[in-house]
Amino acid sequence: MKTPNYSNILEAADRIALHAHKTPVFTSDSSNQKAETELFFKCENFQKVGAFKFRGASNAVFSLSDEDASKGVATHSSGNHAQALALSAKLRNIPAFVVMPRNAPPVKIAAVKGYGAEVILCEPTQAARESTLEKVVADTGATFIHPYDNVNVIAGQGTAAVELLSEVPDLDIIITPVGGGGLLSGTAIAAKHIKPDIQVIGAEPQLADDAYRSFKSGKHIPLEKTDTIADGLRTSLSERTFSIIHDKVDDIVTVSEASIIRDMKWIWERMNMIIETSCAVPVSAVFDKKIDVKGKKVGIIITGGNVDLSKLPWQ
Amino acid sequence: MKTPNYSNILEAADRIALHAHKTPVFTSDSSNQKAETELFFKCENFQKVGAFKFRGASNAVFSLSDEDASKGVATHSSGNHAQALALSAKLRNIPAFVVMPRNAPPVKIAAVKGYGAEVILCEPTQAARESTLEKVVADTGATFIHPYDNVNVIAGQGTAAVELLSEVPDLDIIITPVGGGGLLSGTAIAAKHIKPDIQVIGAEPQLADDAYRSFKSGKHIPLEKTDTIADGLRTSLSERTFSIIHDKVDDIVTVSEASIIRDMKWIWERMNMIIETSCAVPVSAVFDKKIDVKGKKVGIIITGGNVDLSKLPWQ
Repeated sequence: MKTPNYSNILEAADRIALHAHKTPVFTSDSSNQKAETELFFKCENFQKVGAFKFRGASNAVFSLSDEDASKGVATHSSGNHAQALALSAKLRNIPAFVVMPRNAPPVKIAAVKGYGAEVILCEPTQAARESTLEKVVADTGATFIHPYDNVNVIAGQGTAAVELLSEVPDLDIIITPVGGGGLLSGTAIAAKHIKPDIQVIGAEPQLADDAYRSFKSGKHIPLEKTDTIADGLRTSLSERTFSIIHDKVDDIVTVSEASIIRDMKWIWERMNMIIETSCAVPVSAVFDKKIDVKGKKVGIIITGGNVDLSKLPWQ
Repeated sequence: MKTPNYSNILEAADRIALHAHKTPVFTSDSSNQKAETELFFKCENFQKVGAFKFRGASNAVFSLSDEDASKGVATHSSGNHAQALALSAKLRNIPAFVVMPRNAPPVKIAAVKGYGAEVILCEPTQAARESTLEKVVADTGATFIHPYDNVNVIAGQGTAAVELLSEVPDLDIIITPVGGGGLLSGTAIAAKHIKPDIQVIGAEPQLADDAYRSFKSGKHIPLEKTDTIADGLRTSLSERTFSIIHDKVDDIVTVSEASIIRDMKWIWERMNMIIETSCAVPVSAVFDKKIDVKGKKVGIIITGGNVDLSKLPWQ
């Protein structure tokens, strides 16, 4: 099973440099006081399409040969990866095909179309998603770009940690949320290469704790159904991301739904930035003392900011 | 009547460098498309206390002699200046006295106290505010730091434009909101010195158009009562800020309440950052074509992000 190495991440950084934002690293005095530590927030909510997913998707799209690229790219996703792939394809001037469930929020379908992708609606089941995608790929010759089980996507996600460590080289810990594991895998490969004694930790909702259970048991245990409010993290590790995480990550911790909502609001209020529910998960891991951070320098990757402003979780 | 010059602004930049954030300049593809121009947002919503007001307040506090400083500083304000002055005083380890109306939102009173200031409540009238402040100053010997009618405050506010122009030197236009005129004055002094052919424009709510009417008539016309949703802009120019604006600013334009709400939401959605109603005013001036920006490079100072998340204007 192929996994990316640090060179692949550096190549990704070069490849996407023209397209992706170099996002800022923010600090927050009140958050530091609360956590009794120094926190550094790598703000991928200010990335193109509002999420780190643009790094992986654009690396995958710009890695394709001209011949493969000309047939386009395809994926099934109703989240940030779909928008990221659509924009990346638009930037390379190639077609993008996105399979979405018929019951996806109209605003998300519109966003993907807004970036110029062709949206193919299917029944809202995993089987229908996969069979519809297979048909699209067979019909068009497009390359399937999986949201996280893809070497180039994982390498692209790792570029955020490279930027963070170049700005704050003496971090003791980096924490990311973990859903499918693409970001955590890329972060671990990059960070452990740059600073071998750094701790890399994944934070996960208790209600979607497949990475936690897989990590602790040493066996890949996919998720049953979940309705965690952190909707970006409702996916399971793949065999590939599990193997990287098992090999390189120091720990996985879990947090409650109530903490996620509380800390999402904290970041909105204290840092004046819009973060998704998923982003609050590592923040809660710190504030709820699930990780021993006292006196340490801690990097947190803020993954995205795509939120329905008409329905905020604390209202 | 004393007004600051460009040297005072550079001195202010040096003085506050240790305390204030150098805030990022953001861009937004979708906003550029909408405006048919290139926009550069100087994000003072990520400044300390969440507003540019920290620049002026900290410059004023750190300009005091040790003897004057030891007696503290005082102001009347229920807005961002109160928090900015409180934090600045805390950083210099001196007392701050803030006169606030009895009916100020408890969350704002708590925020000022949270920075260590002593809050003195008074009746909610201008006369009571002023007499209470006079008494505080007489009793304590504290120095009154006006929110905008103060040379050091104006010089401090001008430092945002210095940073913006050092990052984007070829701006054609800078737009700021205008309430009391401290920010617009400081911006005009700085920008016209650095790039004499730049246009400096103030944007104001139609419902609080004293700067517009003063500018157009050449006479200082203070505001009658207003309830514009842009609550940070409910103040009038002082003689001092009017004279600077009259002398240096190229134009003042006004925008509707509906545009302010629409564009506040636009920035939240498209840029994933929390901005106050006041910040949307220059954005609306661009989107509503109140200023000829087509094909030009336009800087907008985003002034702050202190918002009551339980009551958003589009809900």
